[in-house]
Amino acid sequence: MRIESPRYTERFGSVRINDVQQVLELDSGKARELPLQENIAVQKVEEDVIKDFEEKMAIIIPTKDEKLKLFEGVISGVPHECMIIVVSNSQRRRVDRFRMEKDTLKQFCHFTRREALVIHQKDPILAQALSDTGYTSILAEDGLLRDGKAEGMVAAMLIAMVAKKDFIGFIDADNYFPGAVWEYARCYAAGFSMAKSPYAMVRILWRYKPKVSAGMFFKRWGRVSEITNRCMNSLISNKTGFETEVIKTGNAGEHAMSLRLAEILTYASGYAVEPQELMSIFEGFGGILPMAHPTAAKHGVEIFQTETRNPHLHEEKGGQHLLVEMLLPSLGVIYHSPLCEEETKQLIIHELLQQQAIQTNEEPPKPHLITPPKAVDLKKFTEVMAQHMKSYSALEAEE
Amino acid sequence: MRIESPRYTERFGSVRINDVQQVLELDSGKARELPLQENIAVQKVEEDVIKDFEEKMAIIIPTKDEKLKLFEGVISGVPHECMIIVVSNSQRRRVDRFRMEKDTLKQFCHFTRREALVIHQKDPILAQALSDTGYTSILAEDGLLRDGKAEGMVAAMLIAMVAKKDFIGFIDADNYFPGAVWEYARCYAAGFSMAKSPYAMVRILWRYKPKVSAGMFFKRWGRVSEITNRCMNSLISNKTGFETEVIKTGNAGEHAMSLRLAEILTYASGYAVEPQELMSIFEGFGGILPMAHPTAAKHGVEIFQTETRNPHLHEEKGGQHLLVEMLLPSLGVIYHSPLCEEETKQLIIHELLQQQAIQTNEEPPKPHLITPPKAVDLKKFTEVMAQHMKSYSALEAEE
Repeated sequence: MRIESPRYTERFGSVRINDVQQVLELDSGKARELPLQENIAVQKVEEDVIKDFEEKMAIIIPTKDEKLKLFEGVISGVPHECMIIVVSNSQRRRVDRFRMEKDTLKQFCHFTRREALVIHQKDPILAQALSDTGYTSILAEDGLLRDGKAEGMVAAMLIAMVAKKDFIGFIDADNYFPGAVWEYARCYAAGFSMAKSPYAMVRILWRYKPKVSAGMFFKRWGRVSEITNRCMNSLISNKTGFETEVIKTGNAGEHAMSLRLAEILTYASGYAVEPQELMSIFEGFGGILPMAHPTAAKHGVEIFQTETRNPHLHEEKGGQHLLVEMLLPSLGVIYHSPLCEEETKQLIIHELLQQQAIQTNEEPPKPHLITPPKAVDLKKFTEVMAQHMKSYSALEAEE
Repeated sequence: MRIESPRYTERFGSVRINDVQQVLELDSGKARELPLQENIAVQKVEEDVIKDFEEKMAIIIPTKDEKLKLFEGVISGVPHECMIIVVSNSQRRRVDRFRMEKDTLKQFCHFTRREALVIHQKDPILAQALSDTGYTSILAEDGLLRDGKAEGMVAAMLIAMVAKKDFIGFIDADNYFPGAVWEYARCYAAGFSMAKSPYAMVRILWRYKPKVSAGMFFKRWGRVSEITNRCMNSLISNKTGFETEVIKTGNAGEHAMSLRLAEILTYASGYAVEPQELMSIFEGFGGILPMAHPTAAKHGVEIFQTETRNPHLHEEKGGQHLLVEMLLPSLGVIYHSPLCEEETKQLIIHELLQQQAIQTNEEPPKPHLITPPKAVDLKKFTEVMAQHMKSYSALEAEE
């Protein structure tokens, strides 16, 4: 594929935040023996390079009672080299939707000769393995994993570690276009191929997020993202002393990380998870607070933001209600960050009042934080999980 | 990519019509040194094979005053190996939209290091070259090409011959998803790789054609296609004596042909062009009328119908009005075919009355037919066009 070269990079301590890079061409053909001279503003990422990174990457698909047709489309778009890890919190009583997801995945893997793992968020073996290693911040009182996308994401991350992958990429299960899913995975691979540090993150900016109404129009960004980005940029501007608008993917659900980076970040429950990843990087490596990890600080943490060619078309779930439900925790993680100064706090309060998300004199809620996965004794966790790995394999699933 | 093997093939004289084959996996990864054993129902088409066919293929994009954002998205999805040929009938007065299309294409080609041709349907040199070789069935009284998509398609076909391509594939310029465009080109390549005859055609069946209304639902087929297919299947059933529903892509705008097949078919103006291609094959090689081309008859003509993974999301243009406007010419080509017997004629009249497309005792209009492009003296045509080819190159376009 062809993608713009990073034209502008904002530095924040040891963090390098690259401005948005657009995808120019989805499929740039064969590698030439004599490569053509590229324009200085464009990078061609060869097919082989993309596939090499895809091989080392697990695509994690968190799902919860999603339409099976959409789920099936999403998995069909994941490039073959990527391992698929589905983490589902779908219902098992009355209608066993988890079973249906497993069957769909099994059928797909059978016909396409590939392997996938599928695990239920409430899997007792998983919970036990985590509990045994003392990693309890994603466990609920009943001893099982807490509900919530973030908890599922962290669990899948740990499974990707057991499967010895180097990179993880998240893709939501409610996407209407397999071709967009395919592009996300390629953007992840292309980003990692450009990274100079082993601690890297790629976040997707949707070209347009089609808003489907009476007619049809393609709105460039969702309202929630717009506000989250503004507040995050305010925080960075206040710390560096230079006004910036570099953050454009504060709420990016589609994003990927090297596992070396993923395992040292602090996560937040629910809709706060994506902005919290960035905040965790800024807190840990922004140079204001003590460095969270000396090796990562030395290499630097790199953030890529990639604007896809494909628009994003997904299931629409609620209007103003969802806005508030997503906005509150998103701004909560910024507000309660030890980095957050008064001016940004005021901006957050102002935005939340405007959206009628809080009352006067109220603050956004503190996020529920999840300890970095590095705290898990991976050897011990692997020992327990390895015995049951077969039962999570889509192809091995009971008939 | 992985695609279903043809499971059922209907024969009609020397024509082999393959039943619909679904795409299973968009990107099947690297070729393995020891290929995995494929399921008997599935074919893996290797990346190299796809790219080899893409190299020999021109993607023709007919356009007329299309939104530039959509046009730009479509070209960005065409695989790099394919030559792009844009044939535009956009306005040049007041706002010079053709110029804007050229600029967009030039910019794209500049940054992606690729070549494309762009020609206006009313180009006087093109018209003169055709007139000189006596190919007048696509010319209007003013000596220029007639309006209409079919005329543009045939002109682009001839340019693809001058450019020495072996295959042409059509993709409409109003598609919202570059990722779908990319998949179409791959489906074309995959189809040709499966063909046993050099006279082959690939027609795309959209997985769902999303109909965008208050909410959003994905309707499986358009109403026009449904009726066209029914009438065409009736005709085949009556000729072969066996009831069939094999034709599912009668109106497929997204389709591709080997140029060896394309040059011996008779085309029809306007919306009749796609069904007429099939009728021309049935008339020429169905074994009822004299064979149109002995070599092609010997090899047989192969038709593939491929159901994509991506849904089709395009500009919505008119409702019942468009239905009638598309249905009348579509059924007209079937009705007026020398193959059409009484039962199918009655069915067509019945369908048209039901849609209030005709009055009682009316018939659908006769199509305006376009002589097979083989009638063009290609040597002479090439001589004239070759001198001006540079001016059709997107990269050479004047600043």
